Amino acid sequence: MKPLNECRILIVGLGLMGGSYADALTSKGFEVGAITRKQSTIDLALERGLIRHGSTEIKKEYVEKFDIIVFALYPHIFTEWIEKYQDYFKPGALLTDVTGVKGSIVYKIQEMLRGDVEFIGAHPMAGREMSGIEYATGDIFKGANYIVTPTEKNSEEAIETCKELGKALGCGKIRTLTPGAHDEMIGFLSQLTHCIAVSLMVCKDSRHLSDYTGDSFRDLTRIARINDEMWSELFLLNKEELLRQMDLFLDKFNELKGFIENDDVSGMREMMRLSTIRRGYFD
Amino acid sequence: MKPLNECRILIVGLGLMGGSYADALTSKGFEVGAITRKQSTIDLALERGLIRHGSTEIKKEYVEKFDIIVFALYPHIFTEWIEKYQDYFKPGALLTDVTGVKGSIVYKIQEMLRGDVEFIGAHPMAGREMSGIEYATGDIFKGANYIVTPTEKNSEEAIETCKELGKALGCGKIRTLTPGAHDEMIGFLSQLTHCIAVSLMVCKDSRHLSDYTGDSFRDLTRIARINDEMWSELFLLNKEELLRQMDLFLDKFNELKGFIENDDVSGMREMMRLSTIRRGYFD
Repeated sequence: MKPLNECRILIVGLGLMGGSYADALTSKGFEVGAITRKQSTIDLALERGLIRHGSTEIKKEYVEKFDIIVFALYPHIFTEWIEKYQDYFKPGALLTDVTGVKGSIVYKIQEMLRGDVEFIGAHPMAGREMSGIEYATGDIFKGANYIVTPTEKNSEEAIETCKELGKALGCGKIRTLTPGAHDEMIGFLSQLTHCIAVSLMVCKDSRHLSDYTGDSFRDLTRIARINDEMWSELFLLNKEELLRQMDLFLDKFNELKGFIENDDVSGMREMMRLSTIRRGYFD
Repeated sequence: MKPLNECRILIVGLGLMGGSYADALTSKGFEVGAITRKQSTIDLALERGLIRHGSTEIKKEYVEKFDIIVFALYPHIFTEWIEKYQDYFKPGALLTDVTGVKGSIVYKIQEMLRGDVEFIGAHPMAGREMSGIEYATGDIFKGANYIVTPTEKNSEEAIETCKELGKALGCGKIRTLTPGAHDEMIGFLSQLTHCIAVSLMVCKDSRHLSDYTGDSFRDLTRIARINDEMWSELFLLNKEELLRQMDLFLDKFNELKGFIENDDVSGMREMMRLSTIRRGYFD
């Protein structure tokens, strides 16, 4: 495989994340192209200088120009995309993605992919609460974690190139996890927290309370403003792991509720002290 | 009753909150005294100019000097304090507090209090994660809500004076709620959120995940660093209301879990859309 700095990079799907990849990589001097659904998106990306060229059509003569292809579409859409158009890829091309779930995607794609191209999962832990190319900016990657999730089907060379791509984006820490370890981590740190925030936000009509709200409630519900199409898909693609994490939380929440019901001060205090110690690891 | 600006104010308990009251009121020109357990605390408060005078002993000749007495002690301690020393109060004195629960305290104190002094509950919605007079500062009240919780036993004059005290502290919004409405609000916005944060923090040994943590997990667990002695007491003093709020949350969390278990995309998306709308009221 070519050195990364000689690679042409295709972004498939110019939303917030795809557009931000384009911004970061173009500003590093890469030749970045794009395929996306709407011509207006291509026009905007060209106007803002995010890409060098782009197309709304999926054509072999365009796709085969690229050494690296980044899929920044909803998981079920890009899995189908790869299946349908895999004949178009340049031999030796490296495919990667930006998706927040891995186990349910990576093996499936690697299973059906032709032998002379490689797919390797990646997940930049970055984003914004808004969606769409209008909000795209390479700045979101600054200092962010970039996680590569290789399997035994991936070559050392591809893993290395994928890590370099993360560095080129400007990510602060480049890490490697198995797809399973990634999904457990994301199920706990990200998906469970979103489930909690949404449940808290809908469990009471709290509009009349907004005048009284301090930081606690605002902090816990910041992520309750959520893209329902994307997150419902991500939850189901990580269903078993997410349900396990939800149960872990429920066990402790119910334990605390039991302490309160039974006036068990020492039980409560012990849990709060553990909580205080553990929170200290995150400061 | 005298106009507020002619009142001498006694703070009982110079911790974070009592010290912050002292700081705010002294800097507004009030004559502020204090009773607290340790001489070193009095010394520090005098040195920093937070109070004009203070005592570690509870003596009639000191207590009876004051027109307004603010109790900034743990609830069970100051309830006993008032019961034991109520003969010391100056006739016509106004007693108030800073506690985050009301129903379980206010009626009990008003019931046992002599007829020529008045207790009126108040709750400045302000604080810091640290405790102790070392961290005290009047700045915490800037823009904060100050809630007065009068009952039918309170005179219009006392309610007005208590509101003026909130303004003198520098609070942004002065509001009146019944003790019951206050406790429902605080059970939901503050106590439930702390229960959630603590449960999330202890449900998994997440130390190895701290490298991957983004804003979501940090935001949801910021308040998991918690004063176990104070919060366990506050939880039990608002037990029925808090358990009701916990059940509201559990209902929705379990509903969402059911949607995930049953691959019910439309159920999930509907809940997320409601969540997004409601979060909008808080921006």
